[in-house]
Amino acid sequence: MTVTAPGGFEAGGVACGIKATGAPDLAMVATTDRLPVAAAGVFTKNRVQAAPVRVSAEHLADGRAAAVVLNSGNANAATGEHGRRDARRMCELTAESLGCSPADVLVCSTGLIGVPLPMEPVEAGIPKLAASLGAHGDLAAEAILTTDTRAKEATDAFELADGTVAHVGAMAKGAAMLAPALATMLSVITTDLAMPADVLRSALSYAVDDSFHLLSIDGCTSTNDTVLALAGGAAGNAPIVADTPDYELVKQAIRRVCKVLTNEMALDAEGATKVVDIFVTGARTDGEARVAARQVANSQLVQCSLNGCDPYWGRVLSELGVSGASFDPEAVDISYGDVSVCRGGVAADHDEGKLAAVMAGERIVITCDLHAGDGTADVTTTDLSHAYIDENRRTS
Amino acid sequence: MTVTAPGGFEAGGVACGIKATGAPDLAMVATTDRLPVAAAGVFTKNRVQAAPVRVSAEHLADGRAAAVVLNSGNANAATGEHGRRDARRMCELTAESLGCSPADVLVCSTGLIGVPLPMEPVEAGIPKLAASLGAHGDLAAEAILTTDTRAKEATDAFELADGTVAHVGAMAKGAAMLAPALATMLSVITTDLAMPADVLRSALSYAVDDSFHLLSIDGCTSTNDTVLALAGGAAGNAPIVADTPDYELVKQAIRRVCKVLTNEMALDAEGATKVVDIFVTGARTDGEARVAARQVANSQLVQCSLNGCDPYWGRVLSELGVSGASFDPEAVDISYGDVSVCRGGVAADHDEGKLAAVMAGERIVITCDLHAGDGTADVTTTDLSHAYIDENRRTS
Repeated sequence: MTVTAPGGFEAGGVACGIKATGAPDLAMVATTDRLPVAAAGVFTKNRVQAAPVRVSAEHLADGRAAAVVLNSGNANAATGEHGRRDARRMCELTAESLGCSPADVLVCSTGLIGVPLPMEPVEAGIPKLAASLGAHGDLAAEAILTTDTRAKEATDAFELADGTVAHVGAMAKGAAMLAPALATMLSVITTDLAMPADVLRSALSYAVDDSFHLLSIDGCTSTNDTVLALAGGAAGNAPIVADTPDYELVKQAIRRVCKVLTNEMALDAEGATKVVDIFVTGARTDGEARVAARQVANSQLVQCSLNGCDPYWGRVLSELGVSGASFDPEAVDISYGDVSVCRGGVAADHDEGKLAAVMAGERIVITCDLHAGDGTADVTTTDLSHAYIDENRRTS
Repeated sequence: MTVTAPGGFEAGGVACGIKATGAPDLAMVATTDRLPVAAAGVFTKNRVQAAPVRVSAEHLADGRAAAVVLNSGNANAATGEHGRRDARRMCELTAESLGCSPADVLVCSTGLIGVPLPMEPVEAGIPKLAASLGAHGDLAAEAILTTDTRAKEATDAFELADGTVAHVGAMAKGAAMLAPALATMLSVITTDLAMPADVLRSALSYAVDDSFHLLSIDGCTSTNDTVLALAGGAAGNAPIVADTPDYELVKQAIRRVCKVLTNEMALDAEGATKVVDIFVTGARTDGEARVAARQVANSQLVQCSLNGCDPYWGRVLSELGVSGASFDPEAVDISYGDVSVCRGGVAADHDEGKLAAVMAGERIVITCDLHAGDGTADVTTTDLSHAYIDENRRTS
């Protein structure tokens, strides 16, 4: 169900032939009546933006969209003006097939960078896909995957103050090139609530900041990262107003689905054998906590230790030290799970058996208390394995 | 010969028992007459500084030193006040054995973080080592190694304007945790020239900035990084004055030995199968070129591609895009060796056979021209291999 869980949306996915494997590679989400609704997006901060990112940002300028078309297997990035023509053509084809304006179509691509998008399968695939739309969020979620091993979906439902039942549905892909500023990830979120685009944008920005932005697998930020949200209005509510209790509910619901998807991406990260939460407390500010947590999360050496189930906290302390956060190294406490391994910046006596049990787990929480203030942050990462290298050493 | 190549210095190395393997683990460099000479140091920028780093920095406040004592097998880092007592004790033992002041002894450690230094072997080893000093730079270079597979040494000789023949000798260790701000590296440089400490400091800083600071294997900056230089004066020259032609010669000679050692460290990097120079040209400034080159050098995904001999330039372009350097993505040219693979931000036609030959090499130059100015930088890195993970997944 996912993106089709909220009323007013249809979706679908097909294999059009971009991927040589014959796997699904073309997805679409559209409003059931093909009319534009409030829409918002968060895009990669990479200076090298893929063609679909630039075209979607243009089409979102009016805060409205009727459909999203997505392909996997090719990123349409580093493809120049030709790539932008191809991205616009995907919007036109979608608009023609659905009967809406091309400016109301958003477009996403994910896959290899620097290879022209093969337009022949896309030209044939889009009309076919548009004709197949229905309650097929699952097919759409499947068709946006690249190295992911499984689809990533989330739904949420909650009640507004007036009793209106609201729904949120979401899908995402992403398994590597996952870094602080989003990941190589695409995500589409739908809701049946009515709200102005600026309210949706603000809620989406809050949710992304506290979910996708806190996942860091390999420190690599992609050219194509995109999170899109569409608010259809089928729930029949009075439009949500910013900074009201209902707005808070919306923010938290979107945040919840984003959190679920973030966790799904961590669990499916390329080659990972463990998901690791780096929880920094006692930083001077939340911002400092976040840079410290990210520094630890991105450390190849910390990730190698985790792969070997080795509680080598010296590397964690060293990374905190270069993060830029301000703290007294001799005040720092570090725990793996609930086993304290470093207290006051030096080794702490601990139960080796208990620690070995923590390290053998598939989910590990590393807590670093800097004792410098009230700032906290929680960044998720994974270990670094042979399989990650194998996945990424050859693209062909 | 190395650090004992310049007249006026003795050195030695022994196995004192810090390393369980019985490999050499204690080294010393001292002036032949045990008198202090001009000395300078560059230390890790990590907020978590190992005890020996703090003690050496204190002892260098007067710009003079008579000896350096170094141990491998234990970093004496994250060891608190106890660790600083141990580092000071190493200086005292050395001073007693040599007949100089403890304040004129510098100390370096490298190895595991967070483990108290075993002082019994050190107490017994230092007097024995001090008694064995001679023209044994090679033994000292051997005794500072950790995961290095071979000693790293360099010498240089040149003539001052007045015909004085000057010598520089140097040794270093470092095979991982090699990052922008130095590496997990120790290096000692000696010269027989006479010069004030501030002139030596300035020449050293220039040399380190243009050598060790441009090596980045895994983006991890250690707690112990130290480069020390001692200028003895046995050459009999009139003290070098800053900003003179002779000073330029000194700067360049120190830079040359640092460059040789940097290259040796890259060639010996843990698990590396290739040494890769990331050469960024056409940046707005040299500083922007450097951040761009470092971003590419540190990228796990770029390093994986290199391991697989895969010329996936899309990842290089993507990393340039997140580096913070300012440029037009559609003006960028990228070459592997002399094969242009990306021109104007998009794929360039090229000879596949020629490119495959470049990628199969053990030394690859990736040139990225941003076409935004005159800034250039050259950062050295390696590929990321299974062997790197294997080396770092367990410390015990």
